[in-house]
Amino acid sequence: MNPNAKGRHVVVRTIERAPSEVAEKLGAVGTATVHEAIGRRGSLGVDLHPIQQDVKVGGTAVTVLSHPGDNMMIHAAVEVCQPGDVLVVATTAPSTHGMFGDLLATSLITRGVRGLVIDAAVRDTADLRAMGFPVWTRHVSVQGTVKATPGSVNVPVTLGGVAISPGDVICADDDGVVVVAREEAEWALDRSNERLAKEEATRARLEAGELGVDFYGLRDRLVDLGVDWIDD
Amino acid sequence: MNPNAKGRHVVVRTIERAPSEVAEKLGAVGTATVHEAIGRRGSLGVDLHPIQQDVKVGGTAVTVLSHPGDNMMIHAAVEVCQPGDVLVVATTAPSTHGMFGDLLATSLITRGVRGLVIDAAVRDTADLRAMGFPVWTRHVSVQGTVKATPGSVNVPVTLGGVAISPGDVICADDDGVVVVAREEAEWALDRSNERLAKEEATRARLEAGELGVDFYGLRDRLVDLGVDWIDD
Amino acid sequence: MNPNAKGRHVVVRTIERAPSEVAEKLGAVGTATVHEAIGRRGSLGVDLHPIQQDVKVGGTAVTVLSHPGDNMMIHAAVEVCQPGDVLVVATTAPSTHGMFGDLLATSLITRGVRGLVIDAAVRDTADLRAMGFPVWTRHVSVQGTVKATPGSVNVPVTLGGVAISPGDVICADDDGVVVVAREEAEWALDRSNERLAKEEATRARLEAGELGVDFYGLRDRLVDLGVDWIDD
Amino acid sequence: MNPNAKGRHVVVRTIERAPSEVAEKLGAVGTATVHEAIGRRGSLGVDLHPIQQDVKVGGTAVTVLSHPGDNMMIHAAVEVCQPGDVLVVATTAPSTHGMFGDLLATSLITRGVRGLVIDAAVRDTADLRAMGFPVWTRHVSVQGTVKATPGSVNVPVTLGGVAISPGDVICADDDGVVVVAREEAEWALDRSNERLAKEEATRARLEAGELGVDFYGLRDRLVDLGVDWIDD
Amino acid sequence: MNPNAKGRHVVVRTIERAPSEVAEKLGAVGTATVHEAIGRRGSLGVDLHPIQQDVKVGGTAVTVLSHPGDNMMIHAAVEVCQPGDVLVVATTAPSTHGMFGDLLATSLITRGVRGLVIDAAVRDTADLRAMGFPVWTRHVSVQGTVKATPGSVNVPVTLGGVAISPGDVICADDDGVVVVAREEAEWALDRSNERLAKEEATRARLEAGELGVDFYGLRDRLVDLGVDWIDD
Amino acid sequence: MNPNAKGRHVVVRTIERAPSEVAEKLGAVGTATVHEAIGRRGSLGVDLHPIQQDVKVGGTAVTVLSHPGDNMMIHAAVEVCQPGDVLVVATTAPSTHGMFGDLLATSLITRGVRGLVIDAAVRDTADLRAMGFPVWTRHVSVQGTVKATPGSVNVPVTLGGVAISPGDVICADDDGVVVVAREEAEWALDRSNERLAKEEATRARLEAGELGVDFYGLRDRLVDLGVDWIDD
Repeated sequence: MNPNAKGRHVVVRTIERAPSEVAEKLGAVGTATVHEAIGRRGSLGVDLHPIQQDVKVGGTAVTVLSHPGDNMMIHAAVEVCQPGDVLVVATTAPSTHGMFGDLLATSLITRGVRGLVIDAAVRDTADLRAMGFPVWTRHVSVQGTVKATPGSVNVPVTLGGVAISPGDVICADDDGVVVVAREEAEWALDRSNERLAKEEATRARLEAGELGVDFYGLRDRLVDLGVDWIDD
Repeated sequence: MNPNAKGRHVVVRTIERAPSEVAEKLGAVGTATVHEAIGRRGSLGVDLHPIQQDVKVGGTAVTVLSHPGDNMMIHAAVEVCQPGDVLVVATTAPSTHGMFGDLLATSLITRGVRGLVIDAAVRDTADLRAMGFPVWTRHVSVQGTVKATPGSVNVPVTLGGVAISPGDVICADDDGVVVVAREEAEWALDRSNERLAKEEATRARLEAGELGVDFYGLRDRLVDLGVDWIDD
Repeated sequence: MNPNAKGRHVVVRTIERAPSEVAEKLGAVGTATVHEAIGRRGSLGVDLHPIQQDVKVGGTAVTVLSHPGDNMMIHAAVEVCQPGDVLVVATTAPSTHGMFGDLLATSLITRGVRGLVIDAAVRDTADLRAMGFPVWTRHVSVQGTVKATPGSVNVPVTLGGVAISPGDVICADDDGVVVVAREEAEWALDRSNERLAKEEATRARLEAGELGVDFYGLRDRLVDLGVDWIDD
Repeated sequence: MNPNAKGRHVVVRTIERAPSEVAEKLGAVGTATVHEAIGRRGSLGVDLHPIQQDVKVGGTAVTVLSHPGDNMMIHAAVEVCQPGDVLVVATTAPSTHGMFGDLLATSLITRGVRGLVIDAAVRDTADLRAMGFPVWTRHVSVQGTVKATPGSVNVPVTLGGVAISPGDVICADDDGVVVVAREEAEWALDRSNERLAKEEATRARLEAGELGVDFYGLRDRLVDLGVDWIDD
Repeated sequence: MNPNAKGRHVVVRTIERAPSEVAEKLGAVGTATVHEAIGRRGSLGVDLHPIQQDVKVGGTAVTVLSHPGDNMMIHAAVEVCQPGDVLVVATTAPSTHGMFGDLLATSLITRGVRGLVIDAAVRDTADLRAMGFPVWTRHVSVQGTVKATPGSVNVPVTLGGVAISPGDVICADDDGVVVVAREEAEWALDRSNERLAKEEATRARLEAGELGVDFYGLRDRLVDLGVDWIDD
Repeated sequence: MNPNAKGRHVVVRTIERAPSEVAEKLGAVGTATVHEAIGRRGSLGVDLHPIQQDVKVGGTAVTVLSHPGDNMMIHAAVEVCQPGDVLVVATTAPSTHGMFGDLLATSLITRGVRGLVIDAAVRDTADLRAMGFPVWTRHVSVQGTVKATPGSVNVPVTLGGVAISPGDVICADDDGVVVVAREEAEWALDRSNERLAKEEATRARLEAGELGVDFYGLRDRLVDLGVDWIDD
């Protein structure tokens, strides 16, 4: 049963994590390929944007479930973070508050955390970019928060319609964020590497002028589906 | 009558295009000026964003009408594209799927296509920028697609509330996307060049300190409309 | 009473402004710190975005209240602007029109205006960036406007749910826009400087590995609120 | 070529209409069935809502293209309306203005118009319901309009991403609005009647306990697509 | 200066109110007419919806400024409410919390409060309708709130982009919410009554078949603006 | 591990359900009370609306995970439904398709299903109301679907940011939808009944004129938080 069943508030100190080096490699593969490799799952959707460009991250999730407009539980989460983690912040209701800024990033950097994914807002974005701390967020806002309402750390959360458990792999880059279940991490890396090889071969054929419509066998399928080629 | 009247699915292979060099020149003029020159029409609205900065494109539309979450018809469209075209992708219902990525871009680059305008999402954005293939899109998403449902190529479509016919001119830059009807292309270029000259003269007068409120004769109009100047 | 009470349209020529150098200093502090310093107020919210990166501005508000899709009153506002001002444009109903472009920016630059905050759209964004004229806007759009409907200049307006009076301080940077009431400007600067010093000290402690959960005394508060630390 | 090509503003007085009784019958069929019957086309999407419940309308489109926040062209359209028409109002940019109320409805009722579809807002909604004048609208708003900017009547427009020509059939009910091209009206009615008969037969079988998964032959298709039935 | 200047939290017990009977009469006039009568101002926009139909309210504003997700200040506001008031709740950042339900409504009904306008969410909507307590709200949500963060009562707030002061008149009906400044209440009622009489006369002429395009003198204006009447 | 781990598509035929009569009683309690009773959890948020008024439902979840724009898996789900179930439909990406209508409702009614919660759109809403089949949906749309892409039945899904497992309790009424974990169902009912009793007592005191600010002990808390009562 979930550690926060029956409305209990908890900070779970010890979690099982996907292997750090597998998480890092999945991050390097890139979100689009990983997402395809594992069966088109795990995308956190179109509303979580990077605040920087040309950065790829892979790490293991430490999760936070906060009251909106209150960042007390993010502070509580810092000490359970380890090198290789990515902090993942969900809220119990939609929030546009700037719940995270350069001071929290300073703390996380000292602990080796690789980045932040937050379903609310961040601030100090110019500083965060200058510090090289990567962030994916729904909003940017200066709006400050209080520290008054309890929540939980390292319980299952959902962001962008996807369930995330502590220790899952978070991959994030310019295209968004993809989560890979902890138990599927190695399998996902194998599948991703297969796909990378296949994409490389496809690219070579396309550069040589072959057409995807032939390549993927779509021409017959289109005919079967009743598509006509006409010269207007 | 539309080639896809009565629900027929078609790939129209041959279309009449606006002259390629006129399309290119309209692209170089810039969307804001072209839009004004043709009577404040043709803007695809505020929700189609470039994924790159400081790029201007002008080309002729090859259109795709797809089922959301299905990119089979984009593959079917590749072979009807010619150098100087811009691929324009509409969907039959709103979509946040990443229907286009670096492999399709590879194909389009080999055919001389100048860019993509898509009313859904793209992925591999870092690669697309690195490849120099310009894209205007509603969303960025890794979410993959299937290849299962028929649609049409080179039929009239609408994006952002504007009707686009195959062969129309697509102008796109940092401000968004403007479409110019094929039959109006030369007229639009003439009007745009006139406007550019006029804007240049206006800019010189404004830099010299003249005021638009005088320059455009607005002071009298404001008085007529009952506006009072007061010193509080 | 408001100068535009009972529906009167006015251009208020002379307004009381916060001291220009105080406004400039508040801009340099940064929006997040100013917002916190004055009691977490004044944020114009998450929907006004900068069109440029790494720019901080502080200035005094000249306000415009326009009919949507009509920029006549922006032209009327130019001549009441002074060096050190920031132009603030609100509309009487939501608007996605590109109400401002490079020609108006040319005029404002000649008058020493420091930037624009607009609750509608701008166009010519590549030019505005090249000219170094900073803009915070809800949308980017080529869609042009008419000059037909009266409005007011230098009356109280609201943007992003915040009331702004002429002469108030506008601070804007990558995180958004914060308004400081004219009467509170010096107080806000003092409070901001205090906060900057405090943040500096906090940063040093966090870099040394201290934890915010201890530092801010949150551990006891969490216990009081019923949070349990568990080892899963 | 469109009557409003090259930015011309026109009021087209005489248009060809789909037969009024065919339009009425298509309205009575209901939007969902008509939409399916013609190949899943013509839906104006999820953002146009009825202000009343349990009303079905079918009529022929008189179209208006207005500047947002300006209802002058709606007034100009009244005199070209005939019994059996539905007024269709599009704007050149998004609008939340209450461009239509009980006085315009009074005029349209005297001319036998069957309803309104508007891509902006209406007001006097309680009165409109009391008058029995059906409306589908994007917003409800008291925000008033000016009468200052030209537009066109009876030119092609797009609403909700669908192109509408004057004289096309508009079907509207609790599920939304569907447009049927004038040239396809009779064909659409035949197809709709066939579909109604088929739906009736299907309903009887489902009420008898047959399953759609068998009925539509989906069980084999699911197996082919790799779906497993498991007992957990 | 505002009672909550410099971030102070206050409950202002005594405020000056517009006359209760004037507020009631303005409510009975209806929002669209009042909005027009006072110069097309005061609309709180399209996002505040009634949870009931066919109810018109007019009353004097008691304002609340709350932290989102925290309804403590609404409880604090109850005792300063008087018969004839309408409670107006704004939040310091966007909120989707159900901050108000049947228990608070019970309290307000005992004090003679006429309704609620809230820029967040309410719950117990079926009960509220059954109790006859009218509500205009941005959202409906069961999501509960805490009672932890201070705010203010009877300070100026903004809702839907409009500034509201304690004691102002709130008019609300099926079309939305309109605010009339306390100092303008009598003037607004006079203007509204004039407008009602004028609308009545207009309605009679329109019912007799006269056209607005003639009635309002629009035909000449359209010609001046370059509109052509054509027979296609 | 999830039955659909590693991208497998499954129809899980047999699931463990919360007791049907407990689910029914939780539905009768109402969503707001249940949500509070279990610790302010389980709300599916503000974007799932009922298509009917004054209906309360409680049942056990049968879940569907569909490709957007494809309702094949809903058909596959029908045969695993039992009396007392509520069908819960999630999609792998946002969808505005009308994936459910009167024919599917006919099937579900014959199987004793109590209602539908769907994170997409429905159609035939007038018929569904007439049939007495309750629906909570994100959108209403006539837009039809294909039957081409595999998905799963009775796997964990998320709607509105909340994870739902097959067999969980779904409570739905005019305020929205709340999910209660299967293992917490009895506990939730006990807690809800306690809360109902407490609310009843509170209501009586409020009707007698007591104030919540005293009743809940908020007056001292407000003083502690620095709120001042002032007479303006």
